Amino acid sequence: MSAITEVALAPPTEPRQVAIIDLGSNTGRLIALAYQPGYSYKLIDELRDVVRLAEGMGVSKAIRAEAFERGLDTLKTFKAYCAAVGVDDICATATSAVRDAANGPSFLAAVEAKTGLRLRLLSGEAEAYYGVLAVANSFAFDDAVVFDLGGGSAQLSLMQRRRFVRSYSWPLGAVRLSERFLLSDPPSKKELKALTKYVREALKQVDAGLGRLPLVGMGGTVRNLGEIQQKREGYPLDLLHGYLLRQEALDEIVEEIISKPLSERRAIPGLSADRADIIAAGALVVREIVSWLGSPGLIISGQGLREGLFYPYLLESKDHPLLPDVRDFSVHNLARQYYDRPAHNAHVRKLALSLFDQLLPLHGYGAFERELLAAAAIIHDIGMAVNYYDHHKHGYYLALSAALPGFSHREQALLALLVRFHRKGKPDPQGVGGLLAEGDMERIHKLAALLRLAEYLERSKAQRVREVHCHLSEGCLRIEALVNGDARIEIKQANLRSDLLARTYHVKVEVVLGRA
Amino acid sequence: MSAITEVALAPPTEPRQVAIIDLGSNTGRLIALAYQPGYSYKLIDELRDVVRLAEGMGVSKAIRAEAFERGLDTLKTFKAYCAAVGVDDICATATSAVRDAANGPSFLAAVEAKTGLRLRLLSGEAEAYYGVLAVANSFAFDDAVVFDLGGGSAQLSLMQRRRFVRSYSWPLGAVRLSERFLLSDPPSKKELKALTKYVREALKQVDAGLGRLPLVGMGGTVRNLGEIQQKREGYPLDLLHGYLLRQEALDEIVEEIISKPLSERRAIPGLSADRADIIAAGALVVREIVSWLGSPGLIISGQGLREGLFYPYLLESKDHPLLPDVRDFSVHNLARQYYDRPAHNAHVRKLALSLFDQLLPLHGYGAFERELLAAAAIIHDIGMAVNYYDHHKHGYYLALSAALPGFSHREQALLALLVRFHRKGKPDPQGVGGLLAEGDMERIHKLAALLRLAEYLERSKAQRVREVHCHLSEGCLRIEALVNGDARIEIKQANLRSDLLARTYHVKVEVVLGRA
Repeated sequence: MSAITEVALAPPTEPRQVAIIDLGSNTGRLIALAYQPGYSYKLIDELRDVVRLAEGMGVSKAIRAEAFERGLDTLKTFKAYCAAVGVDDICATATSAVRDAANGPSFLAAVEAKTGLRLRLLSGEAEAYYGVLAVANSFAFDDAVVFDLGGGSAQLSLMQRRRFVRSYSWPLGAVRLSERFLLSDPPSKKELKALTKYVREALKQVDAGLGRLPLVGMGGTVRNLGEIQQKREGYPLDLLHGYLLRQEALDEIVEEIISKPLSERRAIPGLSADRADIIAAGALVVREIVSWLGSPGLIISGQGLREGLFYPYLLESKDHPLLPDVRDFSVHNLARQYYDRPAHNAHVRKLALSLFDQLLPLHGYGAFERELLAAAAIIHDIGMAVNYYDHHKHGYYLALSAALPGFSHREQALLALLVRFHRKGKPDPQGVGGLLAEGDMERIHKLAALLRLAEYLERSKAQRVREVHCHLSEGCLRIEALVNGDARIEIKQANLRSDLLARTYHVKVEVVLGRA
Repeated sequence: MSAITEVALAPPTEPRQVAIIDLGSNTGRLIALAYQPGYSYKLIDELRDVVRLAEGMGVSKAIRAEAFERGLDTLKTFKAYCAAVGVDDICATATSAVRDAANGPSFLAAVEAKTGLRLRLLSGEAEAYYGVLAVANSFAFDDAVVFDLGGGSAQLSLMQRRRFVRSYSWPLGAVRLSERFLLSDPPSKKELKALTKYVREALKQVDAGLGRLPLVGMGGTVRNLGEIQQKREGYPLDLLHGYLLRQEALDEIVEEIISKPLSERRAIPGLSADRADIIAAGALVVREIVSWLGSPGLIISGQGLREGLFYPYLLESKDHPLLPDVRDFSVHNLARQYYDRPAHNAHVRKLALSLFDQLLPLHGYGAFERELLAAAAIIHDIGMAVNYYDHHKHGYYLALSAALPGFSHREQALLALLVRFHRKGKPDPQGVGGLLAEGDMERIHKLAALLRLAEYLERSKAQRVREVHCHLSEGCLRIEALVNGDARIEIKQANLRSDLLARTYHVKVEVVLGRA
């Protein structure tokens, strides 16, 4: 459990922009990020080009002439974009296709000559390392198995105490295996059997005992499988990062994909059109990994190699740069995108936590709920960026619209509901009831009641109520507010808005000026 | 039709905050606004207190002792808020209750002595003037009849060429009439008849010929009637400003309100609990006004006296301060709340309008569609404030979540749909089909196709494509792009994203580098 801190990690520095380019075996991608080192970041653009650099490589072990030109063309385009936008830094990398090609060095030379970009050629281990870095900085796990499936290769890595320990790298990429094994449409039983055997052979190296750890998956194929399942189940959020693709669902999807010819496969809702021809091989690899490890499913990461390459910029460190606390950073990073009044948010957090601690005998909650309350306090007003009226509704929308790395979707739904009911209304599950667990609506009621009282005790947003002291006797909760200056609006409004607290905790509530 | 300009009205100045206080006969309200003079503004807070200053005044013609204290208490609270927040200016006013009370002067003196606030006592004509100022700056009408119904008095004003011409002011406020006429619960037939007769007598002064003009209504009662009707019809937007409350619907609501006892009236969806006891009289006044003028309905204004008092601050002028162009200001004010890249937005606007003008023979549209396209170009990227992924969806949400004064709700829906489909997808009506008119979906297709092409011709956001020249022959549209520097990404992406244009205009599309 992280403790959501009250203020900025570090004072803001100059905003910067970096472009991360990743020329994969299937896709070339550029992401542009705006960031303030150590403080905040935001994805601002993404370019994507289906390059198929590894096309036909299986036979020749060389990048073919057409693929060579497509690769150059994509990188020229990316370079033109960077020049036009004026990014501060470019980090450009190439992976398996270039690594494994006999003419890889001449491709790198041609890229530099024609575009001025010096591609950094990543080893399989380096790919694995950056994948782990992405997971360590965007999930709350200390230990995990990280699986990254690309067009050319696949990496399976072990992360312990948020650090890269070791990895396996195989030439099990989706493009490569499709060309080598799946030549019929739909794939024949024999082809599938041969591919399965080949994959299983590779996996034998892997200690199946790793299945105890959370299995995190990344890469285009994995994300696309997640999207397909979200469509199938009518998932209530447009968020993929942190989504658990369960093994049973995965098996069903893989079965559907490999049994259909390409023309019908394209019609599967959620499946990317430009991936339909190579997804069968990739899907089969994913199924085999999950099955070999005996994992309950695959937790999908929206972050991967590119984001891993970004963290050294954000944290201004090349030596395994780690956010001190992923959840704490996520909450503050979200608040900073919007209407950020750090002093008000911090003070609402302080008052809410003080109420939480003093009312422990009434709610009996622990560190989990305390952290949620603190996080909700930091982001409770983000909806003000949209409109003062209904800003609780807008905040709910915003809290569900961007990934909140380190929080599960259930936790994100809890946070969004606390934002939704921080001002008024009787809490209900809105559109996210399906994500909640047993007891969560009661949690929302109890925590929203505290957040709401804290918010109205901070009505002027000027920290007039310094402290609160709770006195409980005979079903009556008397809250003494120690104040600086004239806090009549806080006392008045807190009394007006104490009904949720009274109803939820079954007490009479009275907020009075303390005698301090 | 306004022409949506490409850049800021004026360069930004220092941000300021002002609090506008309006101590009405029923409600005391404070609104706090952040603004940059001449450039942008935003409501940041609202305090509301049901004061009932006019309670019991009908008999004594004096503010009663309890009401006197409630008024003082509310103003002390408001003053404490202003001191805590540290606003730059306070503009505090009082209206009918204080104006008409024998002890009004001693109330003003007490307020100054106890709170330090000097209340400006507005005449009926001044109230009317500021109501007209709010309408002139938040609707696109040149001429209108403005009706403002408060707790103590009602004003009916004529606006011509966006200027206040003359007004009627009557003591027809909701609190006052309730006390004088509606003593039974529910009101008896006889009471209703007497009230109706009294209101009709007052209205006889008014030239019924004014019914030709749009009738704009403001004040708490009017807004609440609009909210009730929106609930009844399941209105798709959470926006009131600009909503047309039709006469037939109004008659039904009024009938329901006056026929129910208070206890049942409170249960009417949308009706404010703290207004249930006085709304019957107010609703009846509204019905009589609409009926006397023979208007098709009442266009509800979310802005009123308080916003009217604000415009002299925003425009730094006391002499009938008018925004040069309401719609143009609204669009830029919205863009400025969010991800504002003025150079990119302006360039997308320029390219989109150039395509629009050159393709006139294909679409045959006029000034209305041209303005919509320009406005959509200015705000197309606001969703970036939420998240890069799905920013077209977030922009749709944002464009529907805040009032866009000067645009009708249908126009706002059209704009939101253009934002929604500016990147990809086949346009469909989303949740706002009910607001659209005949031909609007075709408008969306045709305009979104142009906006989308302009957006991808500005893919690097660096104005690399200077101009476009369209050549149409034999069902093939050839678009020559004149460029600065390397615009390969623009040419490539424009070709990739030209499918909506091709499908909608029934042409083959080819974007090529111009020979300039």
